[in-house]
Amino acid sequence: METEKTWKKLAAEKRRKRDLLIPKDWLLPNPPSPDQLDVTQVPEKSGILSQKEIEITNAPIEILLANIASTSWSAVEVTTAFSKRAIIAHQLTNCLTEIFIDRALQRAAWLDKELETTGKVVGPLHGLPISLKDQVCVKGTEHTIGRVAERNSVLADILESQGAVLYVKTNLPQTIMWPEAYNHIFGRTANPYNRSLTTGGSSGGEGALIALNGSPLGVGSDLGGSIRIPSAFTGLYGFRPSFNRVPYAGCVDTLEGQEAILSVLGPMCSSMEGIKLFMKNVISAQPWNSDPMILRMKWSEDAYRLAEHGNGKHLCFGILWHDKITFPHPPVFRALEIVKIIDWEPYKHLEICESTPRIFSAAGAEEFLADLASTGEPLMRSMQQEPDEPVQWPQQKGQVEVPTVRPNYTKPLTAYELWHLHKVRRELRREYLEHWQATISKTGTGRPVDAIIAPVAPFVAPPHGMNKFAVYTATWNNLDYPALVIPVTKTDPRLDVKKPPHRFFSDVDKVMYEFCEYYWILEVALFLRVLDDPNRFANAPVAVQIVGRTQEDEAVIGMAEIVDRAVREAGAGSQCKL
Amino acid sequence: METEKTWKKLAAEKRRKRDLLIPKDWLLPNPPSPDQLDVTQVPEKSGILSQKEIEITNAPIEILLANIASTSWSAVEVTTAFSKRAIIAHQLTNCLTEIFIDRALQRAAWLDKELETTGKVVGPLHGLPISLKDQVCVKGTEHTIGRVAERNSVLADILESQGAVLYVKTNLPQTIMWPEAYNHIFGRTANPYNRSLTTGGSSGGEGALIALNGSPLGVGSDLGGSIRIPSAFTGLYGFRPSFNRVPYAGCVDTLEGQEAILSVLGPMCSSMEGIKLFMKNVISAQPWNSDPMILRMKWSEDAYRLAEHGNGKHLCFGILWHDKITFPHPPVFRALEIVKIIDWEPYKHLEICESTPRIFSAAGAEEFLADLASTGEPLMRSMQQEPDEPVQWPQQKGQVEVPTVRPNYTKPLTAYELWHLHKVRRELRREYLEHWQATISKTGTGRPVDAIIAPVAPFVAPPHGMNKFAVYTATWNNLDYPALVIPVTKTDPRLDVKKPPHRFFSDVDKVMYEFCEYYWILEVALFLRVLDDPNRFANAPVAVQIVGRTQEDEAVIGMAEIVDRAVREAGAGSQCKL
Repeated sequence: METEKTWKKLAAEKRRKRDLLIPKDWLLPNPPSPDQLDVTQVPEKSGILSQKEIEITNAPIEILLANIASTSWSAVEVTTAFSKRAIIAHQLTNCLTEIFIDRALQRAAWLDKELETTGKVVGPLHGLPISLKDQVCVKGTEHTIGRVAERNSVLADILESQGAVLYVKTNLPQTIMWPEAYNHIFGRTANPYNRSLTTGGSSGGEGALIALNGSPLGVGSDLGGSIRIPSAFTGLYGFRPSFNRVPYAGCVDTLEGQEAILSVLGPMCSSMEGIKLFMKNVISAQPWNSDPMILRMKWSEDAYRLAEHGNGKHLCFGILWHDKITFPHPPVFRALEIVKIIDWEPYKHLEICESTPRIFSAAGAEEFLADLASTGEPLMRSMQQEPDEPVQWPQQKGQVEVPTVRPNYTKPLTAYELWHLHKVRRELRREYLEHWQATISKTGTGRPVDAIIAPVAPFVAPPHGMNKFAVYTATWNNLDYPALVIPVTKTDPRLDVKKPPHRFFSDVDKVMYEFCEYYWILEVALFLRVLDDPNRFANAPVAVQIVGRTQEDEAVIGMAEIVDRAVREAGAGSQCKL
Repeated sequence: METEKTWKKLAAEKRRKRDLLIPKDWLLPNPPSPDQLDVTQVPEKSGILSQKEIEITNAPIEILLANIASTSWSAVEVTTAFSKRAIIAHQLTNCLTEIFIDRALQRAAWLDKELETTGKVVGPLHGLPISLKDQVCVKGTEHTIGRVAERNSVLADILESQGAVLYVKTNLPQTIMWPEAYNHIFGRTANPYNRSLTTGGSSGGEGALIALNGSPLGVGSDLGGSIRIPSAFTGLYGFRPSFNRVPYAGCVDTLEGQEAILSVLGPMCSSMEGIKLFMKNVISAQPWNSDPMILRMKWSEDAYRLAEHGNGKHLCFGILWHDKITFPHPPVFRALEIVKIIDWEPYKHLEICESTPRIFSAAGAEEFLADLASTGEPLMRSMQQEPDEPVQWPQQKGQVEVPTVRPNYTKPLTAYELWHLHKVRRELRREYLEHWQATISKTGTGRPVDAIIAPVAPFVAPPHGMNKFAVYTATWNNLDYPALVIPVTKTDPRLDVKKPPHRFFSDVDKVMYEFCEYYWILEVALFLRVLDDPNRFANAPVAVQIVGRTQEDEAVIGMAEIVDRAVREAGAGSQCKL
């Protein structure tokens, strides 16, 4: 009881401190009813943003930078506009953990002065507000659980040296190991397109914030899909770079020292432009001189222009319709049809998806339990509604209790057993590469398939607590293939009707077919029956991911731009020409 | 007893099979007396090699390739010459494990025919014999312990596709975890400069073979110094590339799945030219398309020309005089003086050197014991003379029994403990990089130190069984810094006299000062008292290594060429101008 009091008190205190940083006149005078699902229109109608602030926060990122550089807009104006909109987004979705707008405005003022004095921008990101997942340390500000960072992370250093303005940090799940964004300190983040649905995770705060234009560019992290899942669920672009291209040094993380399948930082944005802007500039800062893990690999404009992919002419994409584990839901399948090219044969995805959680859980829950012991906070065993969780978001009918099983916290392994897993995984990576290279016989381009287009999840954003299936993303983490999520369409109750049953790959796939039943990664199927209601996923964005081979980051960005353009040109929901 | 019979019988059978492959007329008619230390002059005086074969096997590698390409020498002639000389080298040092000269001659004949028919070389290595450490699999030939490879390793594929002729494989220690080359199957390899000294290891067979010009270019592997130590001890150039630039896929190795400090393959050669030739051509074959671990990082001619190091003008090297753990022996110190520039301050080498064996021994001896169980072969606990080892090489006086302790096989760790070690190591890597970057304030070039010049070991080749100290090499494996060994001079009993005692860093350093006493990596010091005789190391080569930052492989080769040229121009033993 004593310990329960401790962690609950600490958490309440932390929330109070955060809320004190919200300027009173940015509080919504008429917050939407708790039952309102879609809140994407609220910020502009809130009365809090001026017309100019609406214009600024809706501007494409390249216009934003150009207008600051030309002094049409000052950095202070831009920072103020995004700060306001971030605070509105927070009131609508509970997306922020740290708020340091004062610091940001001081910096913006300094940037304006520099530009005025020297006539030059400080760097390529001059005046651009960038939001950060809570893990990314910024000197003097707190990160998860109230620890104050003594120095900037390498990435924060680089972004600031290039002129960026850091102003808020965003919500994530306890342990950072869930594909939703719920923890005991800050609570749960909702999806702005439909607040009864999850925003995804673990970089879920970023998803909600950017989807509401509360940030023009955000930094997430991705160990098994944590950038791509919230990007897909909130209609954003999100990029999981290859291991060791974006510096992680100086950030906090869990599973530290787990060096086989690495977590990576990457950008989330409302446009492709922001993805390239982030990657190109971060890599151009030569992060290998500050973070020993970072590859000495310059940004390659040649690779971006697809020099090794026929200069972008006659690309051949392989479509991963399914991974032979689960069949995607109708809207996801429809998104694939919109961009379809040639079929991609999944290769041992089941073996790969077994390998990932076994490596992640090699230490059991020891690390997490040790961290939690100091305050008595209990370890979450799911993202489900907890008995004492305040009901904050619209709840869908038909929710039932799920067994509190977390099957990936299996028995801790010995180092020797872990090495064996690494060895098996390395062979799977070799076989998958061989499989990819062998497609040269099918494409007719003289090259293997240029990229794979794949689902991000078998479903769109599910209701809170029900996002339990990250195999479609984690597969590429395991293989270290860069993967970029692009939004394609939205759910459509007329089009996304349940299809006749296919031949099920497994019992799990049958459960998935039942449309709203999920299971956790392998081993133990968790049955959760909810109503079969096509409106359950109303207004949810639908996305695909473009997947390249290891360290083809630039080429994946180049190809995603081509696919994205084709999707936009075809118009909503129509098949595009690639 | 039954199992002892099994493994001894199997080992004897394997040796017999190998020896049957030695053509009778290549046996030395008058082998040197077992007491003859220096056998480097024997091959040319053996009467087995024709004048042309001597010319071929003494030719610089670039002349060799040019003469084959111009059909002045046929590939068959060249392969025959090196095969003969390899067999002579083997009789002098016991360096070979597998002999497949028939296969090589068939291939050479095919290469000659291709050249004749097409007028073109098959690839940049057309007709070049390349020797391989036993681990590198070649389809249809055996590798350690008599297993037949079912397919080529990726590296063997690349070398053959570029026209190389593979013809022999070379000796290594049991478990591949010792810096000498002694195992129960093939016995012990001697140093051709002084057969009472070790050839080093683990790539020790390559060292002896190449030093006797039995191979123009060899492939070794390096986990803690296994390319550099035998290269230094036998007067060769040897390069440990960064992790994941030379493909390892399809080779056999121990500690598989240990993914923190990776073993790497790399070249050993009598000249700098061979080092570059190997690296450039292997990387140009795009090995990332065949081995998932390989970095998508092209050979950079710009980096090799030192574009990021002032185009090679006014380089600033830091000299690592010692690592604050042990002080180098006089000849090693003298080699450093020959090339000295500015002092390099060692940074936490003790912590780094503690980290390495702890990671390597995380699984205890479990893997090795499991492998050995099938035949009953005992696990070696040192490289010392074993009770039943036939006395094959000249023995130095003063050898005493060493306790059979192998302190790096400590208690097996859990995966969580291993992750903790990784975390500590990552921080050490970060700090070392910071330390390196900070030298920008000292160099006066506007850049940090361009490279470090460091000892390869605190001593030259020691007597058999006494090479127990790989810290000067393993430090760079831990940090993943590419390191290239170049020969500088030889021991000189007039110059290399014992110096007055310095202020010892530790008891271990004091022991090291006593000139011929060694200890195993940390934790337990093994005392081994031998006579203090300056002739103990007679005729031993002395080397230094040029060390760059992670993935500066091309620049390290470029800088090593500059240092090497300066050393050659200065002449034997004089200080060079850098």
